[in-house]
Amino acid sequence: MKIALDAMGGDKAPAAVVQGGIDAARELGVSVVLVGREEDIKPCLDSSNDGKLPISVVSAPQVIAMDEQPTIALRTKSQSSIVKGLMLVKLGEADAFVSAGSTGAVGVGAYSILGCIQGVKRPAIALLYSTLTGRALFLDAGANADCRPQMLLQFAQMGSLYMQRLFGIANPRVGLLNIGEEETKGNRLIRETHRLLKDAGLNFIGNVEGKDVYRGVADVVVTDGFTGNVALKLSEGLSEAIFLSIRRALASSVATSAVSPSLLQGVLTSLIGSWDYSGLGGAYLLGIKGNVIIAHGRSDALAIKNAIGFAKQTVEQGALQALLSGAASKQ
Amino acid sequence: MKIALDAMGGDKAPAAVVQGGIDAARELGVSVVLVGREEDIKPCLDSSNDGKLPISVVSAPQVIAMDEQPTIALRTKSQSSIVKGLMLVKLGEADAFVSAGSTGAVGVGAYSILGCIQGVKRPAIALLYSTLTGRALFLDAGANADCRPQMLLQFAQMGSLYMQRLFGIANPRVGLLNIGEEETKGNRLIRETHRLLKDAGLNFIGNVEGKDVYRGVADVVVTDGFTGNVALKLSEGLSEAIFLSIRRALASSVATSAVSPSLLQGVLTSLIGSWDYSGLGGAYLLGIKGNVIIAHGRSDALAIKNAIGFAKQTVEQGALQALLSGAASKQ
Repeated sequence: MKIALDAMGGDKAPAAVVQGGIDAARELGVSVVLVGREEDIKPCLDSSNDGKLPISVVSAPQVIAMDEQPTIALRTKSQSSIVKGLMLVKLGEADAFVSAGSTGAVGVGAYSILGCIQGVKRPAIALLYSTLTGRALFLDAGANADCRPQMLLQFAQMGSLYMQRLFGIANPRVGLLNIGEEETKGNRLIRETHRLLKDAGLNFIGNVEGKDVYRGVADVVVTDGFTGNVALKLSEGLSEAIFLSIRRALASSVATSAVSPSLLQGVLTSLIGSWDYSGLGGAYLLGIKGNVIIAHGRSDALAIKNAIGFAKQTVEQGALQALLSGAASKQ
Repeated sequence: MKIALDAMGGDKAPAAVVQGGIDAARELGVSVVLVGREEDIKPCLDSSNDGKLPISVVSAPQVIAMDEQPTIALRTKSQSSIVKGLMLVKLGEADAFVSAGSTGAVGVGAYSILGCIQGVKRPAIALLYSTLTGRALFLDAGANADCRPQMLLQFAQMGSLYMQRLFGIANPRVGLLNIGEEETKGNRLIRETHRLLKDAGLNFIGNVEGKDVYRGVADVVVTDGFTGNVALKLSEGLSEAIFLSIRRALASSVATSAVSPSLLQGVLTSLIGSWDYSGLGGAYLLGIKGNVIIAHGRSDALAIKNAIGFAKQTVEQGALQALLSGAASKQ
């Protein structure tokens, strides 16, 4: 299996990204194609790669920055790592593309270069996240700021199929993110979506509230891309704030105490890992005719390795084939 | 100063609510009017009140349950604690009404019994919350699932005035909750609101993202009631999940370690207090012609006491008068 990796994408690129690619090639049994500026990649590669790992480099001299307007950047930078990485997938030269670069550019690029699965109106960013009881899929985490009910219905259908394939859940529980349990609750978009979901033949468990998201009551949580992106970034900010205040409180307690906090620091570090992005690998661009994984912009080598592992799992489980035939069966 | 307290409202009513009222009357220098079923209130009162505290009871034989449809409940239960408590404010017999009962019933009741400040389209639930650097106001936390840009503009104006009065902040920083920093980001509602806020004469700092909410970058964070309520409940659920997993990890570490975790438990308990609702007192129903404070449904005695303290502060600082004259000056 061959995974294309955007070596130029993310805050810690190229060094940490290349390192993540090397670790994946060494540990996960995949070939990694590093896409990016050769002069930047080579020094990172030479220092850690023993030359025997299944790693190759595809030259992409241009870089799309995080803050560039996606449509313009994609049009003017056809030799960028994002465009060239997506092209590898389109041409069948890679099974998946992993990028920690601009989410907007990867999303718009995937939409225009690979296209949507037949019948799918818009792709969604489907984020796998930790709950108190396991894992769940949250979508749309930010691809579509303005959604229509029919789009949310498709997100639910695709998310359900994806979780079936990825984790073998026979009948994934689908919840609609809302502000109350009753079906009369919510804004117009969500009330109308609720009506569609009731008749969709899915295992629709009804509305889930913000407080339920981390309890693991649903396998698939559906929302629009605006609410979803706010929720995602809020979770990130809140967990950081809580862990930061715990560290501060620990530091000041330790100063006046004989108890060593090493035990607790260890506990905290492992918990932070399980609650933040690095342990989960990323988000899948669901609805695109190709496997595209968006890793967090702040990904370190471990997060990149996990994103590649996530890509591998997605490919191995045949998630895309299931989605393609699911779409075909509805034609 | 006289604060009317809904003795029947909340999961722990009446015992914990009455206790919170007693504590407030003893410690905060306010008179507390307990509104509710006398036969339920009296036993709670007798056991802890020494008879010298400024506490009185107003009989309200009916109770509106948390899950009742607000409009119907308000119409059929004119002798409920919520209706009678709001009437005390309307008649000038109380300076504020505090309730941990049904948010919907209190909101709809306040709107119909007290009405909105002249020119205000809709009231917002304005939640005071902890940030890493202090306190900020978050609104609308759930009163209006479907908002228009003009409503969000008014929320920003009222929130700004409120924070000026409550904390003496000369020029509160107003942020618009969005999914990116650029003004072209967001859904239609938020993009249009951004345009209005730029010309509103407020200290508008632009968009704030979910990750900024807890960093204290703004004094007032404006959003629609759907996104706001999802964000509020998500924060509650996530912080509970994090603290629960820390406790679990601690418990299992302690079982295999000689280190006593009492220090850490103490740190955790105080942190949980600062991050959850009980320390902050509640939410103000901003835009209503009267002081109405919504406390959390799970409020214990401490949370109720703090909600009364928050009501006292709001009354003392003349927040409502400022809002009323702010509205008048725009006529």
